[in-house]
Amino acid sequence: MTRLADLLATVFERRQRGERVRPRFEDRPLPELAHALLGSAGEASGLALAEAVLARYEALDDAGRRDFLSEVARTMDIDPRAVRAALEGYEARPARDTYQAFAAAAEPPRQELIRRLNQAPGATTRLVRMRADLLRLGRGDPPLEALDQDFRHLFASWFNRGFLVLRRISWESPAHILEKIIAYEAVHAIDSWDDLRRRLQPEDRRCYAFFHPAMPDEPLIFVEVALTRGVPSSIQALLAEDRPPLPAEEADAAVFYSISNCQKGLSGISFGNSLIKQVAADLAADLPQLSTFVTLSPIPRLVEWLEREGVAWDPADPERMRRLAAWYLLNAKGRDGMPFDPVARFHLGNGAIVHAVHADADVSPKGRAQSGGAMVNYLYDLGKVAQNHEAFVARREVRASAEVRALAERAQISPTEER
Amino acid sequence: MTRLADLLATVFERRQRGERVRPRFEDRPLPELAHALLGSAGEASGLALAEAVLARYEALDDAGRRDFLSEVARTMDIDPRAVRAALEGYEARPARDTYQAFAAAAEPPRQELIRRLNQAPGATTRLVRMRADLLRLGRGDPPLEALDQDFRHLFASWFNRGFLVLRRISWESPAHILEKIIAYEAVHAIDSWDDLRRRLQPEDRRCYAFFHPAMPDEPLIFVEVALTRGVPSSIQALLAEDRPPLPAEEADAAVFYSISNCQKGLSGISFGNSLIKQVAADLAADLPQLSTFVTLSPIPRLVEWLEREGVAWDPADPERMRRLAAWYLLNAKGRDGMPFDPVARFHLGNGAIVHAVHADADVSPKGRAQSGGAMVNYLYDLGKVAQNHEAFVARREVRASAEVRALAERAQISPTEER
Amino acid sequence: MTRLADLLATVFERRQRGERVRPRFEDRPLPELAHALLGSAGEASGLALAEAVLARYEALDDAGRRDFLSEVARTMDIDPRAVRAALEGYEARPARDTYQAFAAAAEPPRQELIRRLNQAPGATTRLVRMRADLLRLGRGDPPLEALDQDFRHLFASWFNRGFLVLRRISWESPAHILEKIIAYEAVHAIDSWDDLRRRLQPEDRRCYAFFHPAMPDEPLIFVEVALTRGVPSSIQALLAEDRPPLPAEEADAAVFYSISNCQKGLSGISFGNSLIKQVAADLAADLPQLSTFVTLSPIPRLVEWLEREGVAWDPADPERMRRLAAWYLLNAKGRDGMPFDPVARFHLGNGAIVHAVHADADVSPKGRAQSGGAMVNYLYDLGKVAQNHEAFVARREVRASAEVRALAERAQISPTEER
Amino acid sequence: MTRLADLLATVFERRQRGERVRPRFEDRPLPELAHALLGSAGEASGLALAEAVLARYEALDDAGRRDFLSEVARTMDIDPRAVRAALEGYEARPARDTYQAFAAAAEPPRQELIRRLNQAPGATTRLVRMRADLLRLGRGDPPLEALDQDFRHLFASWFNRGFLVLRRISWESPAHILEKIIAYEAVHAIDSWDDLRRRLQPEDRRCYAFFHPAMPDEPLIFVEVALTRGVPSSIQALLAEDRPPLPAEEADAAVFYSISNCQKGLSGISFGNSLIKQVAADLAADLPQLSTFVTLSPIPRLVEWLEREGVAWDPADPERMRRLAAWYLLNAKGRDGMPFDPVARFHLGNGAIVHAVHADADVSPKGRAQSGGAMVNYLYDLGKVAQNHEAFVARREVRASAEVRALAERAQISPTEER
Repeated sequence: MTRLADLLATVFERRQRGERVRPRFEDRPLPELAHALLGSAGEASGLALAEAVLARYEALDDAGRRDFLSEVARTMDIDPRAVRAALEGYEARPARDTYQAFAAAAEPPRQELIRRLNQAPGATTRLVRMRADLLRLGRGDPPLEALDQDFRHLFASWFNRGFLVLRRISWESPAHILEKIIAYEAVHAIDSWDDLRRRLQPEDRRCYAFFHPAMPDEPLIFVEVALTRGVPSSIQALLAEDRPPLPAEEADAAVFYSISNCQKGLSGISFGNSLIKQVAADLAADLPQLSTFVTLSPIPRLVEWLEREGVAWDPADPERMRRLAAWYLLNAKGRDGMPFDPVARFHLGNGAIVHAVHADADVSPKGRAQSGGAMVNYLYDLGKVAQNHEAFVARREVRASAEVRALAERAQISPTEER
Repeated sequence: MTRLADLLATVFERRQRGERVRPRFEDRPLPELAHALLGSAGEASGLALAEAVLARYEALDDAGRRDFLSEVARTMDIDPRAVRAALEGYEARPARDTYQAFAAAAEPPRQELIRRLNQAPGATTRLVRMRADLLRLGRGDPPLEALDQDFRHLFASWFNRGFLVLRRISWESPAHILEKIIAYEAVHAIDSWDDLRRRLQPEDRRCYAFFHPAMPDEPLIFVEVALTRGVPSSIQALLAEDRPPLPAEEADAAVFYSISNCQKGLSGISFGNSLIKQVAADLAADLPQLSTFVTLSPIPRLVEWLEREGVAWDPADPERMRRLAAWYLLNAKGRDGMPFDPVARFHLGNGAIVHAVHADADVSPKGRAQSGGAMVNYLYDLGKVAQNHEAFVARREVRASAEVRALAERAQISPTEER
Repeated sequence: MTRLADLLATVFERRQRGERVRPRFEDRPLPELAHALLGSAGEASGLALAEAVLARYEALDDAGRRDFLSEVARTMDIDPRAVRAALEGYEARPARDTYQAFAAAAEPPRQELIRRLNQAPGATTRLVRMRADLLRLGRGDPPLEALDQDFRHLFASWFNRGFLVLRRISWESPAHILEKIIAYEAVHAIDSWDDLRRRLQPEDRRCYAFFHPAMPDEPLIFVEVALTRGVPSSIQALLAEDRPPLPAEEADAAVFYSISNCQKGLSGISFGNSLIKQVAADLAADLPQLSTFVTLSPIPRLVEWLEREGVAWDPADPERMRRLAAWYLLNAKGRDGMPFDPVARFHLGNGAIVHAVHADADVSPKGRAQSGGAMVNYLYDLGKVAQNHEAFVARREVRASAEVRALAERAQISPTEER
Repeated sequence: MTRLADLLATVFERRQRGERVRPRFEDRPLPELAHALLGSAGEASGLALAEAVLARYEALDDAGRRDFLSEVARTMDIDPRAVRAALEGYEARPARDTYQAFAAAAEPPRQELIRRLNQAPGATTRLVRMRADLLRLGRGDPPLEALDQDFRHLFASWFNRGFLVLRRISWESPAHILEKIIAYEAVHAIDSWDDLRRRLQPEDRRCYAFFHPAMPDEPLIFVEVALTRGVPSSIQALLAEDRPPLPAEEADAAVFYSISNCQKGLSGISFGNSLIKQVAADLAADLPQLSTFVTLSPIPRLVEWLEREGVAWDPADPERMRRLAAWYLLNAKGRDGMPFDPVARFHLGNGAIVHAVHADADVSPKGRAQSGGAMVNYLYDLGKVAQNHEAFVARREVRASAEVRALAERAQISPTEER
């Protein structure tokens, strides 16, 4: 560990220094700088140019940013004729040089621009923000959507699972990281530092996040975990303020009750699957007596679907709510044949199964409105996730416990297809 | 720094655990596993497959490795017809989906294979070694050379300057890193731990290396620096065992006397330029009284060139040697019009100038054989490197001090072109 | 730094494990355990005994604690006859053995008890808390006051300046440290995490604390610093929420506006002097343009003194308030001839001088009540603190700027002695 | 761990800066500086004085050092009359002030001198060296031996078990620490870096050291461990160069085969007991399948004793050597009734038992000369060490395995008392 600490101390210092660099080249238009950066043969001027392009971009308002991104999308696209010519050259004589020529032609220059921008200290975080702009400003604009594809391609490579670092978030974590946990929590809002402390400090609570070494101050995604005896059926009970903490070694279940993405600019780059499995594996190693890895998840589109289908529902009848929720989770599909419910899609796609459904499990206004208070446990059986995942991907098979299947059967709803 | 140390502690642990993972899938042929990895829709089986492919590959001998790499090169190449069709689709209607289809077709599946292999813990180091195999085994084989192009493309992205970490190597560095410094020193061999200590511990010595966060135990490239008063003219004097160390704050020059690449598998991914400039900038910040950043470099092909050109030379005539060396550095070109000398190409390409030449500067057998004992100082004037670099790249202009230019003029050799 | 990080990782782990140790020996009375610990010849049972004594003590209420401490004070005191005999032996024949016998007799066994208790993991923090109990429960009780003397003697040795570590507290510090900063701030209360952030995050704010390696989670004392242009004259202006931060490199003054002790159990062990000088030296090294190191301090007993002396004062007359404050700071003495004002005693004792006084400088209710809103700047001139300190200690000389002296002269109060 | 790393980064920096401090006060005699340091009321001049005293002391030769230490011993001793007077005061009226007066009188000023010297950055290491001088130069000189008693008393407090940090030493440890391991190994010499690597890098080898936070570059004591199957009977087999390493998880025994003190200046401050037990506890936690914790120890005075007693011995008769060794270990006593063998004293005092004896176990010249090649395993049964220790301390009882007792019985030697 020693040399890593050392190593990262250097990252940090470089970052600090980077923050003091002031933009230069004020007299030249931004697109010209971007082209100059692409053309710059050496790093000599490259770093300064990259810094200048990023700083100038960040000083723009939304209209200016959109203009710049459009300019990049338009002027740094592939040249189909050049691609075709290079392709023919490679077909005619497959070799290093012809392949290289093809690869060069088939990759738009804007990808190289993004790579060169990334040379500046701290640039990765800034490029992630640039893509967040692009997603926001470019919706429905084909060239900008194509440019987004380039960002996404590069980010998938840079944020490769092998480069990510899992790290526990605790009450001993730095405050500037913790305030991001407060800000990014997307499922059950954290309303104060005291609330945050209740999710981190008791010995039956855990929180883990993925980080990238080039963005050490920015969690990418995090999951909150409760250690319990038995599988819980109410989020309010789980998070109750006056709850006595359970000694960690007495827990038999780890409950993933919230998972939140932090970076809009990394949309479409999937980490959640890895995160849950890695955390489950780490917890299993630390607390060998844990036998159950399960979520306590919202069913965010249950009410929407019931209303759309004209199915009568009544939150005051818990048994009915459970049957409806079970049926919905097992049978309600979108156009693509995948589960209608986005959270179900995520966990089933990870290889989890529908383990149990509960009524009156989230009595918050949001919980009432979305699902009539119902929640669901998805079960991660580490020995079976691969096999469940295959069944789901290959045959759209939604696996569930016998209890949930029985509930669904008693729901008396006829299957429908989303139209 | 705190969260970085924390973060890396986790890297380390993951790495440790990774080392204990044992290969699986022993009953299936390796190429089939590689294709399965490409096809695996989720990470569930992906990680285990990646680990298995790497372990199975590493258990092969050279012939087996070559076969596997050839199989990958051949069966995971681009499909020109598919590229052409996708290109037409994009031309007809440029949009997110058509662009995505084109990008998918234009990138050979073997790139995705490499990315998926990289998900396994510690995989980056192993992929760098795989490319070292490829360079060694694939020379002259067009498909393997094309495959190498894919490795190189991905590595250029992964080893982007923005992801590298500069770190000082000192006598307080971990022994397993230091033994790599001993092993990789390519210019002036380090023959023992005592010799190493003499290059690291005195207060007038420095050593810096670039690291990648996913390869924390492997330096990528390192540079050795001596702090001196005045510009040195003899490597033996510089490295003399009984030399009294100079207090660091009395030095006015930083001398880069050795720069060594460590990873054959990263051949062609250039770091040296960044390294020297970053180290110079860091030294300038730490020791503000340093006014000169200079190398003490070999002239490895001087004798070869003199002999080829039929120029009479005599190591016992130091003035003559200096003139010949000066002339050679300023005027001897390869076919591409670039300097004939590879070390000159590197430093001039970085924006350095030829500052001074010395006879009897390296009296080791190697120094005598390569350059008749002559050496050269290249000067890095941080305020001018960008401009020098531009002149060199744009106009092949080799900049030199007045003294060196004068020496070259007195050499009485007529310029030649390499044939 | 590497091996320190490594080293402390181990501290941490040991601490963690220590927390899980459960007390033993439940069947024996606590004082008997304490005597057993003193008698235990080896560490074998010593560690477990130490842990048991601490845990049993901590489970007691105040009456029980007081009884235990009294028992220790009474039964582990020196034996005057033994001291006298050993002293005679040493006088008769001064040698290693006679000196050792004397030293053993002259040190009460309770000091050895405290040292042995300190062997348990995490014990130092717990012993500091035990002394806080003792100070609270033992006031006016001679044996307990003598026992406190033993704690104090050992703590002065353990918390020797050479063992303390200065560390910057920032918004990147761990939350569980930061919450202690909120809790311990004694001068200008921090009322929320947002308020804390305003004192830590802007680039013109600094905070430093001393830590002891055996208590890494507990700041011992901390100082808050503002970087300013010019010497400030109002604490409300200094802490204003909407204040635009000053770029750190534009500041010319570092203002120590709050200094707080954190550990009641370390009362009488002085760190403040070292802290201010060390912080000033560190700031001077980091920001060489800083030319002034000054406090903005309360005058907590000004109003009390004016009322006692029957001096008429009027907060609505700022010039009068400044004169009175100047006179008070320079001339009001306690019975011991030292300044009447405790803050003045502290800073003058450190070698600072009275630099300027301000009316309407602290308009909070507390500021109005204590000093009619007046505050004072003490100036730390690093080149003169030693000399000022000597003058103060040797001759009770209170040094001040010409301006403050002139103000005091115009105050028209006749000097008095506290009676 | 984060804040500890941070914290220690600061230690390190302070240390670095400290190294550049240059001595002052060159015009005043060293003893005068020492007295000035004692008299200095504040830290202002104290730090500079401490630094000056240490630097001036270190510039002296042995004669000069001895003179200075004698001066300190003589002029900073207790004053018996003052002690007696203060003691009477305390007897007459036991209270805080009288107790404080007694404590002040009973502690010689030289203890306070040592504490004040310790305020200088890096001073702890230098004071440990000063005591090493004292032990070397002061032997047989009563005042210097008394002064040594003061050092020892303070060091016992500063190097309290609760302040020590256990740290693993591995091939990833810093080279400047590793070279100290090479230098300090006292039992089985390490003759090169390769030899060192063989003791650290294989997965069946471990090395642990105690450090003090104020001396992070100096191990205090270290132990080398081999993980084995079964209890080993030959040190040469254990350390054989061509030995295939055992996978750590296949080991069932941890063998402490070498334990070395590093600091002469800490002589008499015992760490070994704690070290072995802590390491055994850590190994047991990491590798739960380990069932045996045992040493492979020399019997350094066996031959000396046999010769002195006139007992015939023959290294070529292994069974006879084992019987003699067993008898010696169980029965040979010094004048104090403790085991004659120093290594036996150490391990039996820690609560170990004599587990097995081996002939031809150390065939090095040193092993042959000291013990005719015999070695011994002491067994640490963590559940019984406390009880064994008590029996040894209280009743001089030497516990041994049945096999060793049987061997001893067959030795046919009559017990003797050392005369």
